[in-house]
Amino acid sequence: MLGHGGGGRLSAELVEHLFLPAFRSDDAGGGAAVGGEPEELLDAAQLALDDSGGGRLAFSTDSYVVRPLFFPGGCIGDLSVNGTVNDVSMSGARPIALSSGFILEEGLELAVLGRVAEAMGAAARTAGVRLVTGDTKVVDGGSGGDRERGGGLFINTAGIGVIPDGVDIRPSRATPGDVVVVSGPIGLHGVAVLSQREGLDFGTAVETDSAPLNGLVAAMLDVAPDLHVLRDPTRGGVAASLCEIAEAAGVGIAYEEAKLPVPGEVAAACAFLGLDAVSIANEGRLIAIVTPADLDDVLNAMHADEHGREACVIGTVTDAHPGVVTARSPLGASRVVDLPLGEQLPRIC
Amino acid sequence: MLGHGGGGRLSAELVEHLFLPAFRSDDAGGGAAVGGEPEELLDAAQLALDDSGGGRLAFSTDSYVVRPLFFPGGCIGDLSVNGTVNDVSMSGARPIALSSGFILEEGLELAVLGRVAEAMGAAARTAGVRLVTGDTKVVDGGSGGDRERGGGLFINTAGIGVIPDGVDIRPSRATPGDVVVVSGPIGLHGVAVLSQREGLDFGTAVETDSAPLNGLVAAMLDVAPDLHVLRDPTRGGVAASLCEIAEAAGVGIAYEEAKLPVPGEVAAACAFLGLDAVSIANEGRLIAIVTPADLDDVLNAMHADEHGREACVIGTVTDAHPGVVTARSPLGASRVVDLPLGEQLPRIC
Repeated sequence: MLGHGGGGRLSAELVEHLFLPAFRSDDAGGGAAVGGEPEELLDAAQLALDDSGGGRLAFSTDSYVVRPLFFPGGCIGDLSVNGTVNDVSMSGARPIALSSGFILEEGLELAVLGRVAEAMGAAARTAGVRLVTGDTKVVDGGSGGDRERGGGLFINTAGIGVIPDGVDIRPSRATPGDVVVVSGPIGLHGVAVLSQREGLDFGTAVETDSAPLNGLVAAMLDVAPDLHVLRDPTRGGVAASLCEIAEAAGVGIAYEEAKLPVPGEVAAACAFLGLDAVSIANEGRLIAIVTPADLDDVLNAMHADEHGREACVIGTVTDAHPGVVTARSPLGASRVVDLPLGEQLPRIC
Repeated sequence: MLGHGGGGRLSAELVEHLFLPAFRSDDAGGGAAVGGEPEELLDAAQLALDDSGGGRLAFSTDSYVVRPLFFPGGCIGDLSVNGTVNDVSMSGARPIALSSGFILEEGLELAVLGRVAEAMGAAARTAGVRLVTGDTKVVDGGSGGDRERGGGLFINTAGIGVIPDGVDIRPSRATPGDVVVVSGPIGLHGVAVLSQREGLDFGTAVETDSAPLNGLVAAMLDVAPDLHVLRDPTRGGVAASLCEIAEAAGVGIAYEEAKLPVPGEVAAACAFLGLDAVSIANEGRLIAIVTPADLDDVLNAMHADEHGREACVIGTVTDAHPGVVTARSPLGASRVVDLPLGEQLPRIC
């Protein structure tokens, strides 16, 4: 069902019970497969090119099935570049090259494909990453895509990055006492796509936050090479990312609802649609988990970058309730935040 | 149209006129993009990790849309592993890691997905390559896939390999005087899939040739580090691969029809369906272009490998008719072999 691709609990079950057992390698102590170690799902796998541990690569992939193909502020093309640039960056790696695999439905207009390809090229140049290899397949028409435009389009990108020596960023490094930072306003991407898809109007135009975060990450690493965790809260939003981190590290995470940077348009859309901004997909935001000692330097570096100007603290890592995320309301009540079953909004990326 | 994904002239035009201009990078002298240099389409892009030229990576991607999902001798799962292992290997690289991106149509049975994932894992273990990162998206149903099984399935794999120092394998190195070798019987994959899809019976069961060729390539490089060209003749078959090599190198290639290793079942299917075996997709074969001095060593190494036992010479590289492939019939007449417009058989891989 659609929820199996939504990045929530159904997705996690598919990985844990179906892909990981099937993909296990024969290496002694192996099992490393989809998304890194079986007990820890990374945005990008980490590969050592030699036995010395030097020359570590990050390697990640994502397929993009967003509908409609074009939405306020972006399209499937720039999304497919930014999304994978960000996945690679969340290991602290400097992304260097992307592949692109197109699956087109017969009948897709070449002009549409051209606009998407131009957007991919422009996004890659903005990010300073090269699209180096590609493949195109055409399948007979059906749905799958954008019926109105006569032919659907799916894009898979994979990305390679080089992890700087000494950098060790992964969910399981979240440590009680650490501080949880989010890089900017949340929920914009999901609301932008949904409003375009459904023809809804929330007063002001909401544009996607889709953006490459490799520059922001590099600036943060410059001042804080010991960054503990980075995560881009895409499908499932900030809530899903925090749940996965809490589970991987065996720590509690507590955030304050009042500190979540939810723009007014997003709050209005959520109230109208019965959604929760903390579970909506973002495509140009990151969550960072940093030590209190690094916090000021990291926030200063983020505020100096165009993609981190509105970075703010939303919570802390605790040793209470290991594996559980809690949200504190403005009135002081705490509630447990669950990993959503699927995505509230299917085909959002 | 379907032909734009067929690996023939329509595919080449899409890359040349749409993707390459859109994906150009800003590097001085750049333009390198989809599939390597604009004037030379490689199966895998080659990346230098540092300025010294050491630590070269091969990086490749392919999407798999074959229908039906299961066919004699294989399924979309092992195909998606072997195909990308082979693309990476065709640069002489040792493949080390694969990503997998799944696009599922709602309604696909989990048991089917499980069988496909098991086949991928088994193929990866056979090839000695690890599936290290993955992604799953679910789209609403339609066609796109295998209607009978209720839900389609597309798989993208990307692969990374390490290119040994000193190895320089690319189409443009084909040199007049070189010898053209094919690693075994041709046309089996295409006929196997087609017969399953259409319910045709050609007397004996034809099984796909799908296989990983990284071991064969390593054995060939052991005895001939100066191998000039390797190519896996997938979509468009041996004919398309030879045309692309002739064009990239500005040489002529002449082969003898009588020397093509076409199994009896494939010949029978071709006669029945009006197809040409030289244009049918293979998934476990390679074409090698080698110097006469290396030929005996290369053939001996191939014959000692399970995937090269029936390797044979089919032609030579010439300086007549630059860019053109010619076939000589058993009666001595020569004809020009054109890059097919599209694939004779859509959705074959």
